[in-house]
Amino acid sequence: MTFQLPDAVAALSRTPDVLDALLGDLGDGWARHRPAEGEWSAHEVVAHFIHGERTDWIPRARIILEHGPERPFTPFEHGHEAIAEGRTTAELLDLFRTLRAENLAALRGFGLTDADLAREGTHPAFGPVTMGQLLATWTTHDHVHLGQITQALATRYTAAVGPWHAYLWE
Amino acid sequence: MTFQLPDAVAALSRTPDVLDALLGDLGDGWARHRPAEGEWSAHEVVAHFIHGERTDWIPRARIILEHGPERPFTPFEHGHEAIAEGRTTAELLDLFRTLRAENLAALRGFGLTDADLAREGTHPAFGPVTMGQLLATWTTHDHVHLGQITQALATRYTAAVGPWHAYLWE
Repeated sequence: MTFQLPDAVAALSRTPDVLDALLGDLGDGWARHRPAEGEWSAHEVVAHFIHGERTDWIPRARIILEHGPERPFTPFEHGHEAIAEGRTTAELLDLFRTLRAENLAALRGFGLTDADLAREGTHPAFGPVTMGQLLATWTTHDHVHLGQITQALATRYTAAVGPWHAYLWE
Repeated sequence: MTFQLPDAVAALSRTPDVLDALLGDLGDGWARHRPAEGEWSAHEVVAHFIHGERTDWIPRARIILEHGPERPFTPFEHGHEAIAEGRTTAELLDLFRTLRAENLAALRGFGLTDADLAREGTHPAFGPVTMGQLLATWTTHDHVHLGQITQALATRYTAAVGPWHAYLWE
């Protein structure tokens, strides 16, 4: 499937609603559940989404538009811990909704043409990438991490399902 | 985590909203995308949810309440194809919402006590199971298959993400 900007924007616009439906008011028992030691809870994944809105997708699109391939992107550092700490899940959901709306407004403001989608930037690890690839990755990253959240939720009753475990995970 | 009925009902109640947020009006390009030949699209997973509402969870809870372990559950047969065919995704989402609301009303109507959650039924393949295990599995099944939907959506741009493929899936 080739990348289509309106389709991507449609999906990106929905993610705050998906997160609210999955987690809003569901309670810490669900949102803070970690599948295993060291793995992320739903709460932590939402913090990771927020970190990406602030430092990754639109900031990198701006680098492509303003500097082209000459200026490599700032390397993406994991930084969700400071965002997750001291905030409720509801606060994270609100913050993500605000940032995503601002970033989609910025994207619309760019008025990207098909030619713009082919413009190149430089990824610090693997070199040449296009604006279209960056935006496809933003969209796909949403779906991949929504999957991580549903998997974290699915493991809460790993023991409670009893013998059905074999049908759900094996 | 031990099974808690109010927590499970809270999660089960949200699934129609999660599906609407993920898929409602998003278009067939997303909803009908199959990750690979023979794997389910989001549209087909919603049909599978509908099939479960009709034949699996609450019908089995009724067998436990009415017959206990003496009457094994009717084996669950896959039957989503006939439900998926000839319906739009929007129609499937509406149908699922209606059935889920009816089934949660039935569950509330049972007025299950902690003692009821320990009541036993007989699974046709693996024998003794409890009401609590059945309801934990209903909840977990939602999250597992929501994960399947997000994974189906995530694969739409497998090629379009270019070199980011390595970060998203490897």
